[in-house]
Amino acid sequence: MLDLYQKQTKCLVALDSIIFGFDGEKLKLLLIKRGIEANESTWSLMGGWLQENESLDEAAERIVYKLTGLRNLYLEQVLAFGQPKRDPIERTVSVTYFALINTTVYLQTSELEYEGQWFDIDKLPHLLFDHIDMVNTSIKRLRNKAAFHPVGFELLPEKFTLPQLLNLYEAIFDQVFDRRNFSRKMIASGFISRLNEKQKGVSKKGAFFYKFNKTTQDNTFYLIPGINSLV
Amino acid sequence: MLDLYQKQTKCLVALDSIIFGFDGEKLKLLLIKRGIEANESTWSLMGGWLQENESLDEAAERIVYKLTGLRNLYLEQVLAFGQPKRDPIERTVSVTYFALINTTVYLQTSELEYEGQWFDIDKLPHLLFDHIDMVNTSIKRLRNKAAFHPVGFELLPEKFTLPQLLNLYEAIFDQVFDRRNFSRKMIASGFISRLNEKQKGVSKKGAFFYKFNKTTQDNTFYLIPGINSLV
Repeated sequence: MLDLYQKQTKCLVALDSIIFGFDGEKLKLLLIKRGIEANESTWSLMGGWLQENESLDEAAERIVYKLTGLRNLYLEQVLAFGQPKRDPIERTVSVTYFALINTTVYLQTSELEYEGQWFDIDKLPHLLFDHIDMVNTSIKRLRNKAAFHPVGFELLPEKFTLPQLLNLYEAIFDQVFDRRNFSRKMIASGFISRLNEKQKGVSKKGAFFYKFNKTTQDNTFYLIPGINSLV
Repeated sequence: MLDLYQKQTKCLVALDSIIFGFDGEKLKLLLIKRGIEANESTWSLMGGWLQENESLDEAAERIVYKLTGLRNLYLEQVLAFGQPKRDPIERTVSVTYFALINTTVYLQTSELEYEGQWFDIDKLPHLLFDHIDMVNTSIKRLRNKAAFHPVGFELLPEKFTLPQLLNLYEAIFDQVFDRRNFSRKMIASGFISRLNEKQKGVSKKGAFFYKFNKTTQDNTFYLIPGINSLV
């Protein structure tokens, strides 16, 4: 039995993190320049290797912490990438995770060590290896997530206005939504509550602030009509 | 640079396949008894190791073919499982895939070699390692898929009746749907077409057969109202 295991090829297992951010206007991606790669002008996702005694989730958390200085982020495994030649140095299977960050709380200090930089999602530079496939797959997953789950919890500040929420969804889906319909559906969904406080200095009338109702965040909650509409 | 790669721990990379089937009545799972494991009374998912020159998708296809004799199946990567002690013999990261099979075309011949057996999804035996977690994660993924995508393409025969389609969705979601609403929504979705042919021998009146419109199977198709309802 042990013999059967010993005959098998071993691989390196890497983790690459797709770190999405929202600055109130645009969906962003955090990239670094990895010192170890030959071409220093190529940008890369933040990555690292799985260590002996950690789970994949723990490894992803450790790696994202190293770049952002943030813990307890929203992290979701997206897909394992395993083309034989994807890393030219050694056979490496990479398990990707995406993270969601409100860029206003992102600690800029860690940018220096890794030369981290935010890029607009629609203006990405050339990326290392198959990293662009990882990014594109993660954007699809993020959209899927956003259709069922209030991702705003992670990407927006605690208090936000309806125009800010609309900006976020338009940035994620890369399309323009009808403002009135969007607001009506969001309010009707029951997962945001209006505060008795208005944003100042943006418009004359002032937009009300809202907050997310974290208690609605359970399995049966759908931002858009879910499978229950089949019943 | 090479040095940095050489310092890292290497792992075995396995693939485990969650093979769902539908026999017209119930959602099923195909399990085997793996000869290599100590406890021969324990059932297991069909698994294997990633080989030197194949991608993860190719490996999953090869492994499912070995058990079922079927190629070009619907296969979707679900999640990589990597708890340090999940396989007691060697550190093994397992990438899971689910497959969808109409059990009437499944070639029974391969059952003999691997002692394959179909189990009702709600009556599973004790499974090896963390395989039950893999199954549960895949059921959630299948439900998510079924909400947006006509999985019936893979799980139903070419001609099917509305009661058969309803059975399939009730089996996947493990809940009872209102028959009339369900039929109305399915027909309105435009992804099934009625044939000029009736099923005989089941009911007196006879139910019409339907077929899937494969042309509707694109990105903008949603079985339930999709993100477009936000517009």
